[in-house]
Amino acid sequence: MKSNVVAVIGGGQLARMMQQAAGPLDVRLRALVEAADGATAQVVPESFVGDPSDEEAVRALLAADGASRLALTFEHEHQDTDLLQRLAAEGVSVQPPPDALLYARDKLKMRERLSALGAPVPDWAIISSASDLDEFLAGHDGEAIVKTARGGYDGKGVRLVTDVEDIADWLAGDIELIAEEKVPFDMEVAALLARRPSGEMRHWELTQTIQEDGVCAVAIAPAPEVSGELRAEARRIAELIAEGLGVTGVLAVEMFVTGSRLLVNELAMRPHNSGHWTIEGATTSQFEQHLRAVLDLPLGATGMRAPHAVMTNVLGSELSDPAEAYPEVMAHLSEVKVHLYGKGVRPGRKLGHVSAIGDDLAVLTERTAAAAALLRGERRDK
Amino acid sequence: MKSNVVAVIGGGQLARMMQQAAGPLDVRLRALVEAADGATAQVVPESFVGDPSDEEAVRALLAADGASRLALTFEHEHQDTDLLQRLAAEGVSVQPPPDALLYARDKLKMRERLSALGAPVPDWAIISSASDLDEFLAGHDGEAIVKTARGGYDGKGVRLVTDVEDIADWLAGDIELIAEEKVPFDMEVAALLARRPSGEMRHWELTQTIQEDGVCAVAIAPAPEVSGELRAEARRIAELIAEGLGVTGVLAVEMFVTGSRLLVNELAMRPHNSGHWTIEGATTSQFEQHLRAVLDLPLGATGMRAPHAVMTNVLGSELSDPAEAYPEVMAHLSEVKVHLYGKGVRPGRKLGHVSAIGDDLAVLTERTAAAAALLRGERRDK
Repeated sequence: MKSNVVAVIGGGQLARMMQQAAGPLDVRLRALVEAADGATAQVVPESFVGDPSDEEAVRALLAADGASRLALTFEHEHQDTDLLQRLAAEGVSVQPPPDALLYARDKLKMRERLSALGAPVPDWAIISSASDLDEFLAGHDGEAIVKTARGGYDGKGVRLVTDVEDIADWLAGDIELIAEEKVPFDMEVAALLARRPSGEMRHWELTQTIQEDGVCAVAIAPAPEVSGELRAEARRIAELIAEGLGVTGVLAVEMFVTGSRLLVNELAMRPHNSGHWTIEGATTSQFEQHLRAVLDLPLGATGMRAPHAVMTNVLGSELSDPAEAYPEVMAHLSEVKVHLYGKGVRPGRKLGHVSAIGDDLAVLTERTAAAAALLRGERRDK
Repeated sequence: MKSNVVAVIGGGQLARMMQQAAGPLDVRLRALVEAADGATAQVVPESFVGDPSDEEAVRALLAADGASRLALTFEHEHQDTDLLQRLAAEGVSVQPPPDALLYARDKLKMRERLSALGAPVPDWAIISSASDLDEFLAGHDGEAIVKTARGGYDGKGVRLVTDVEDIADWLAGDIELIAEEKVPFDMEVAALLARRPSGEMRHWELTQTIQEDGVCAVAIAPAPEVSGELRAEARRIAELIAEGLGVTGVLAVEMFVTGSRLLVNELAMRPHNSGHWTIEGATTSQFEQHLRAVLDLPLGATGMRAPHAVMTNVLGSELSDPAEAYPEVMAHLSEVKVHLYGKGVRPGRKLGHVSAIGDDLAVLTERTAAAAALLRGERRDK
């Protein structure tokens, strides 16, 4: 009989890493997963295969006897809002609440809401027709980032556009679109915090993210060469959004740094790739904090365990299993922490990540890059 | 299909914590457990209820298709040596090897072997009769520690003896006994290392252990006020034993510090309570290192992540579930890391531990003691 139960919808690496935080806290995790042999089901005994929009499956997930605290949470934003609202109305603790989750799922609603809150965002407009786009391009040096309002992630549903032909398929499909100015940014950063239903918030250090093909490749904390003023401003913006949207659990606010300004790019209401460094690098990881936050337990300290932390993703591999590289990775890079997600290899797929913490940022960057390269099946140069 | 599979015999907190290390490394853990709802089975999907001496059960545990590396290991020493030797003869990688494990299981054989190796041990003698004991007491100020050769742990099978009446039941039961001098120690320490079948060894910092009623209550790393010479000597002794006994995986050598001398008290060939601080306090935890070592993968760095680490056990609780104390523990001690093992409450039972790392040893000691007290159901004083 466990006091604390978290029901999570999703069977990928994020729920898998929630389980790694749930174990020490003796939080009983129950997962609604896509596949019985997926990343989460491999390590969560109470994994149930089902569809997140199947009301019976979600209700079964919540049927955990004896819990004094129970929360329903998610590893991605693409949920059935109506179902979640019904459950919340019945008294189920849905965290983040369905009304908040909507803003992470729908980029148009998010842009509207952030603009109303006064959060700094890139110029944007709704694109319903070719003429909407032409007008936006005319005002923005002939370039725009066009995004589908729904369904995008990891570079999908996002295009750099200079001509209406670039989005002819989307327009023909009657898909809700927004255009955003292409921000000439110096750096991308993520402000990561957690918030409890009762309002307590804790921040981690601002993190630089380096994207490749729209996918996070590297995260560095604290973000180097960002002024104290800008770090404080990033926290202010993240708090404004967390409170304004009623977010609970972990919130990642991805932003562009352009000169001395910050502009909000994307939101994620769940543990986020930019925060994987917190597993080793912070007193409380984003996964532990997410569990604490959704259960409305007091949040943990978020200070760093070393001056610098670097995380590098393992995206695809030439090996049939990246773990085949362990003898070489472990022999030459004994300070790097390896995280593999138990996923089958596919080109570009997020198969895992590696982390290192310490005093010398250049060394950490080099070592995590070398470890990730070996796990991707590239040969060592030296 | 996983490259690396570890089969573990035992379903308590040690196998549970192995799983917390197995997840990130994508090592597939399969456990032979005592109960389907025990500490390990709660977090290891491939848990099988069975008896460690049931050959079919152990063979089923080893039937993991597709592994390129597979090792059989243990969370306690009380194994069926004959069965393990047969498996090893068939080519199963049994780590630590049955011949080594024997020394951790049988204190008489251990004492004989350590004496032969030249490791410093307390004066000791075999006790087969009342007159053996009388003779030993006469030579040691009328006091002795008498231990059963087999079956003891956590203070069980160990007695402080001043008269033959104190062990009349053991003598009547024809139990193999040894007597040891009662060492007037200044401190108890544990030297912790890991060793691979191929010979590589890595040490963690020497750890002070504070025992209460024969059970480890607190561990402090590095052991305070121990000279560099003595720390080096402790490493030398641990290496001598690891190599002399052919130990693989984690080896904990518990020793007495008496003046400038070290005397070996007990051995454990598995992750050990004295090393739980390594989860947060070292680059590689004892649980991760054990998995790497038994799989004969290169060992991880063992440096500390902070100047000091303190671990305090949660022994028994007035609460029906120690997690009921989370709101208070987490609100007031946000830097302490809580580990609960999912075990039912019984008086004095090891239900979990708490850890903290940082710069100020006194603060860490106070905070972990306070957190453990709250989890035991004691009220906060302030």
